[in-house]
Amino acid sequence: MTTSPAALRLLVQCPDRPGIVAAVSRFLFEHGANIVQADQYSTAFEGNGAGRFFLRVEFETAGLDLPADTLAARFAAEVGTPFAMEWRLSGDHRPRVAMMASRTDHCLLELLWRWRRDELAVDIPLVISNHEALRADVEAFGIPYHALPVTNATKAQQEAAIRTLLRDAEVDLVVLARYMQVLSADFVAEYPARIINIHHSFLPAFAGADPYGRAFERGVKIIGATAHYATHELDEGPIIEQDVVRVTHRDARDDLVRLGREVERSVLARAVQWHIEDRVFVHGNKTVVFR
Amino acid sequence: MTTSPAALRLLVQCPDRPGIVAAVSRFLFEHGANIVQADQYSTAFEGNGAGRFFLRVEFETAGLDLPADTLAARFAAEVGTPFAMEWRLSGDHRPRVAMMASRTDHCLLELLWRWRRDELAVDIPLVISNHEALRADVEAFGIPYHALPVTNATKAQQEAAIRTLLRDAEVDLVVLARYMQVLSADFVAEYPARIINIHHSFLPAFAGADPYGRAFERGVKIIGATAHYATHELDEGPIIEQDVVRVTHRDARDDLVRLGREVERSVLARAVQWHIEDRVFVHGNKTVVFR
Amino acid sequence: MTTSPAALRLLVQCPDRPGIVAAVSRFLFEHGANIVQADQYSTAFEGNGAGRFFLRVEFETAGLDLPADTLAARFAAEVGTPFAMEWRLSGDHRPRVAMMASRTDHCLLELLWRWRRDELAVDIPLVISNHEALRADVEAFGIPYHALPVTNATKAQQEAAIRTLLRDAEVDLVVLARYMQVLSADFVAEYPARIINIHHSFLPAFAGADPYGRAFERGVKIIGATAHYATHELDEGPIIEQDVVRVTHRDARDDLVRLGREVERSVLARAVQWHIEDRVFVHGNKTVVFR
Amino acid sequence: MTTSPAALRLLVQCPDRPGIVAAVSRFLFEHGANIVQADQYSTAFEGNGAGRFFLRVEFETAGLDLPADTLAARFAAEVGTPFAMEWRLSGDHRPRVAMMASRTDHCLLELLWRWRRDELAVDIPLVISNHEALRADVEAFGIPYHALPVTNATKAQQEAAIRTLLRDAEVDLVVLARYMQVLSADFVAEYPARIINIHHSFLPAFAGADPYGRAFERGVKIIGATAHYATHELDEGPIIEQDVVRVTHRDARDDLVRLGREVERSVLARAVQWHIEDRVFVHGNKTVVFR
Repeated sequence: MTTSPAALRLLVQCPDRPGIVAAVSRFLFEHGANIVQADQYSTAFEGNGAGRFFLRVEFETAGLDLPADTLAARFAAEVGTPFAMEWRLSGDHRPRVAMMASRTDHCLLELLWRWRRDELAVDIPLVISNHEALRADVEAFGIPYHALPVTNATKAQQEAAIRTLLRDAEVDLVVLARYMQVLSADFVAEYPARIINIHHSFLPAFAGADPYGRAFERGVKIIGATAHYATHELDEGPIIEQDVVRVTHRDARDDLVRLGREVERSVLARAVQWHIEDRVFVHGNKTVVFR
Repeated sequence: MTTSPAALRLLVQCPDRPGIVAAVSRFLFEHGANIVQADQYSTAFEGNGAGRFFLRVEFETAGLDLPADTLAARFAAEVGTPFAMEWRLSGDHRPRVAMMASRTDHCLLELLWRWRRDELAVDIPLVISNHEALRADVEAFGIPYHALPVTNATKAQQEAAIRTLLRDAEVDLVVLARYMQVLSADFVAEYPARIINIHHSFLPAFAGADPYGRAFERGVKIIGATAHYATHELDEGPIIEQDVVRVTHRDARDDLVRLGREVERSVLARAVQWHIEDRVFVHGNKTVVFR
Repeated sequence: MTTSPAALRLLVQCPDRPGIVAAVSRFLFEHGANIVQADQYSTAFEGNGAGRFFLRVEFETAGLDLPADTLAARFAAEVGTPFAMEWRLSGDHRPRVAMMASRTDHCLLELLWRWRRDELAVDIPLVISNHEALRADVEAFGIPYHALPVTNATKAQQEAAIRTLLRDAEVDLVVLARYMQVLSADFVAEYPARIINIHHSFLPAFAGADPYGRAFERGVKIIGATAHYATHELDEGPIIEQDVVRVTHRDARDDLVRLGREVERSVLARAVQWHIEDRVFVHGNKTVVFR
Repeated sequence: MTTSPAALRLLVQCPDRPGIVAAVSRFLFEHGANIVQADQYSTAFEGNGAGRFFLRVEFETAGLDLPADTLAARFAAEVGTPFAMEWRLSGDHRPRVAMMASRTDHCLLELLWRWRRDELAVDIPLVISNHEALRADVEAFGIPYHALPVTNATKAQQEAAIRTLLRDAEVDLVVLARYMQVLSADFVAEYPARIINIHHSFLPAFAGADPYGRAFERGVKIIGATAHYATHELDEGPIIEQDVVRVTHRDARDDLVRLGREVERSVLARAVQWHIEDRVFVHGNKTVVFR
């Protein structure tokens, strides 16, 4: 599943109709692209009438007969437009990812660790928090840390400052690694399907606040975590990944919090990994994930 | 985890206070009971003030110095009443279990199979359905099958007929193995913590109708099933067991139904097994399960 | 994931080189095949030099401009031979599957159940056993049951009789659903990658006899089951699917057997399902499984 | 499952016979101990003749009528010796744990993280490695780091130096967090059931070197990790905990290594947690784990 360094990814979605794969693969072949992995899916098979087609192709560029930008222009003219595709080429630059967290360290440190171990092939230009608590940890990784405290009165202003930081850093993705402030609809709209949040329950169960406390009260035998794209509706965005862990009557609320931490960090790490490898497509309020 | 044939179980719950285990174990020891398994739990450790204590003791009866009924009377006087216990002895008769199902066979057949294979140590005096569909399957196991069709107009009358059947059969437990009719509050009240239902979602997610359809619409990556005691509030009773299975964007609603079947039947089978082995205690709207 | 009735599958493996997908998809498109699902994999990315390419394409046949056999001949000439492919078209007939079992019913009944529920789209012309024990169960499904007892002295003769039965029934697949006799190398060679066996451990742990007893002795905390293609080397064939279940110190050998049953039957059922849907490719002693 | 600060644990194993629980619970009750959790197990129920009994009792000490050491002496005389118990009181001091690692950081950092987050209630007087690689990470936690390089020629001498360090630090437990040197039988014998090792496979599968490479070659669909007590026989000690993760044909050897890391660290962390909470009893080559 490793991407070779001199590889690009072609990411397509369009109305399903015959000939898409033939057109794409012929185009790539004729220009010397060597396909190393391809995944496709069409919602036509869900039986809801006209389908939507999704395609992810990873190809080596060593034998290309054109530079990437010319290839892209030709693809647009010969394949993309005729098939009414939304498409893009990816892989020519390392994604720039901002992390945001509040006081809880486990999700953030999990990601930084993986990043330092070269499991997460991104640049992390900054970490933003509404607290000072995590500064030393973050700076130990050599990453700039911005603490922007927030009160009800300063919320709009603090968010504006965050958005300026993100714009200046030219980030491709924002990861909410247990950032406990609700983002405004405007903020979310600026990064469509580019803000990943971790919710500490297996949504749609226990949407909202204190999921572990409510899971304890309800007496569930399984708890979980959900990584999803942030949308203007809280906890309602497209789900990327979920996982669960068993609990018993012996586990008090604090035990659920502790056990949940492990699920939260692995679920969030997988979602971020898949996103930056361009494995996640959004379709309505759902995701197609090519693993 | 096998119960030896000449064994009894003492099941206790009471306000937590020092000396309970000492009193119980001394009583049993002095009367020649050989304890082979014991489990206990107290909610005191959840930090909500006064705790509730739960105890399950399994003991061999070969060396008892008293017959079981005399032992019980002595226990009541010397231990049960002083400690304000709700308690009972169990294991002296094979539980009588009625199964109820509608048209779907997988949960019912799973249980009948396990029963025939002697994994489920119960008698099954009857199976009740609101359809004829499962008659041949059930009768092949040598179990009487009662089909009581129901319409809105005949609902009260049909339920009365069911309750008469259950009373005549002197059942200890009713298992709703995908019985798709809501039971009246009166019915449920007649069998407190003695009706086990299987719900085809990981409650509290997708409580109510068509959980697989709604799971598909929401785009969850995990589906599940929940076995719980029926209460007058639909899908709100104490949860006994839950389990889950992964799904992907490729799984249409029908795939979820198919994948869910396997989880439903194993979750229900475990819940029934634990119930008839007296491993499940109800405390408020939660369960303590000694596995 | 459902196959539409008027669909075929093209199954290909060949040396990896550029242009395979372009050639296949162009051929199918030009003849009016509508691709509804496609999966591919190449071992080139494992970094062992020249790769092997695997492709599974499912396509609707309503718009084909040629009958299937002519299409196949043209494919052979224009694509299959030039690319040195091993390939076949599948889906034009319902697979014929023979089940073999000894005295244990759980794996066999699981498969028959799924078959009766139309989850398993196969014909089952016969069940073969070396015992009479399962006759009533099997015949209740309307399937002929052949009991061929075996002793050391009659082993060769009994196996010959089985092979005649299988040939006469023209089976595509043999499922060893806990058939406890070792098959001869000749038998296995007659059905390459067409005999699926279930082994009651997570191979390679506890290969050979009494895996549950040895798991108990070793004190493992997880037990499992493995479905694999039978080869002349016992328990060494390509693994199709595995799964596991947790156990504890409380579980005696018999508990492991009981808990293992559930894993065995679901693992075997998945492996058979994937095989008959042509999702499993064999490559050396490993499998590629397109789920 | 949290231990209250003023609590002790009584840990017992002895030949099983009637009256043990009665004697222990009476003794504790009469001396004012308030039992907050108790777990017991007897191998008698495995059906191998005379059983071995295991008991873990956690009790609050606020109401004790004697100091702990007097209580212990009285317990020895009145209960321990009469029942031929191996027993001890635990909880009066924070366990001292040495970590050992080579170059791989994930297991070590996982434990240090949990320790800093107060999930792991131990003191960590030192970390020992045969490399310098992890010094900065470890020292950032404020823990002394000892790098003792080793060659074939210096192995005995290096091990002697390690043992001196451990003795000077008065450690209760040694955790081999991916320490890639084999320890001598003498070393292991000095810390019976007090050295926990993590093996990167689901033992007994792939015991020995390069388990991920061999798992890749064998084509298994599940990989795992095993935490066990070190004994003089490599990879053969009593298993404390195991866990697994699914893999597919797409996962190359390096992917298995990466996926395995997550299992390794959670399995090792759970094993260490349970050990320091005195939940693990060793019986022959197996463990009883009271979770």
